[in-house]
Amino acid sequence: MSRQPVEHPRFISLEGGEGAGKTSALAAIRDTLQAAGHQVVLTREPGGTPLAERIRAILLEPAEETLAPEAELLLMFAARAQHVQRVIAPALAGGAFVVSDRFTDSSYAYQVHGRGLDRSLVEDLERRVVHVAPAMTLLLDLDVREGRARTAGRDLWPDRIEREQDDFFERVREGYRRRAQAFPQRFRVIDASQSPQSVAVAVAEAVRAWLGAQA
Amino acid sequence: MSRQPVEHPRFISLEGGEGAGKTSALAAIRDTLQAAGHQVVLTREPGGTPLAERIRAILLEPAEETLAPEAELLLMFAARAQHVQRVIAPALAGGAFVVSDRFTDSSYAYQVHGRGLDRSLVEDLERRVVHVAPAMTLLLDLDVREGRARTAGRDLWPDRIEREQDDFFERVREGYRRRAQAFPQRFRVIDASQSPQSVAVAVAEAVRAWLGAQA
Repeated sequence: MSRQPVEHPRFISLEGGEGAGKTSALAAIRDTLQAAGHQVVLTREPGGTPLAERIRAILLEPAEETLAPEAELLLMFAARAQHVQRVIAPALAGGAFVVSDRFTDSSYAYQVHGRGLDRSLVEDLERRVVHVAPAMTLLLDLDVREGRARTAGRDLWPDRIEREQDDFFERVREGYRRRAQAFPQRFRVIDASQSPQSVAVAVAEAVRAWLGAQA
Repeated sequence: MSRQPVEHPRFISLEGGEGAGKTSALAAIRDTLQAAGHQVVLTREPGGTPLAERIRAILLEPAEETLAPEAELLLMFAARAQHVQRVIAPALAGGAFVVSDRFTDSSYAYQVHGRGLDRSLVEDLERRVVHVAPAMTLLLDLDVREGRARTAGRDLWPDRIEREQDDFFERVREGYRRRAQAFPQRFRVIDASQSPQSVAVAVAEAVRAWLGAQA
């Protein structure tokens, strides 16, 4: 029950903070995989199934009641367990590539580095209820203020996590960078200070190179 | 972070299956404590805060999508973490008695014995995110068929868990009995085959005896 999560060779995750261009990057990953003849399932966290999307709503809707950091973490992993069992594992078993907008690295960045929860709790949950890890993770790395400046216009109703202060997002960014340093084989760090078009080109090149190296 | 949960001397939980008379028993516990001059906070799981009640709705509403057992367990503990931090810990700190309709023993009975999840996962979550345990747990023990016969008339819309089959509830009952055997100091097992009035009398006597032994 406590084995390390297994990197699946057709599982890719995309990580990064606000305004880093994840939407264009996701499309670039999908297009690159499809151009190489692969079936692609795009999904996202928290969410990815109707039930997990209900958990997402509890996580993201601003509420008067403060959500305890431990409750936030367990809701994230409840949604992830559901997502893996209902969507990711069946899609991988069926031969598709799965591209997830966020996965377990987000819990290390947001809940461990951002909220200060114990890393070993997240490691335990990853081993015990997730079981699977991406074989490639694209991290869109961007200065926190730059990212927030980009989204300032579009987020009329910021969600519960978007309402955090800059120092929280600085810790999240540092958390992502440490994950990338700890797993250099799996991570591709993309400079997201470029235009969204340039980010998408860099992402597509990283995916093509990765596919080539696997072949 | 991994210390054993601490039994709080003013924390009481009530456990038991369907139709065992928990509603009358809760009132009996409250009345007995109040008659002894204590302030009492009655609460329930899953739930107990507006946010935790939203998690309860995901847990209990019948849905087409099967809820993964691991997701069910993590939702239970997310709600419990929220419940402890927002309601139980503040009430105990303020000097009140807290009486919870279900607590962590339910996760051992329903998720470990009922669903077959790994006991050590539940033990880890209890140690890492709950931290507190009741000093007295009243278990209303009742034959599964008898309990279901009693509720058959009132449950026009059985919830997701009530829709389980008898063998699931047999495992839950056995799980509760094993918890009682493992923690004989904390548990009081009440024969719930009696009338609700007799169950309430037995519960009140158990609470009075416990208060007397603590004084």
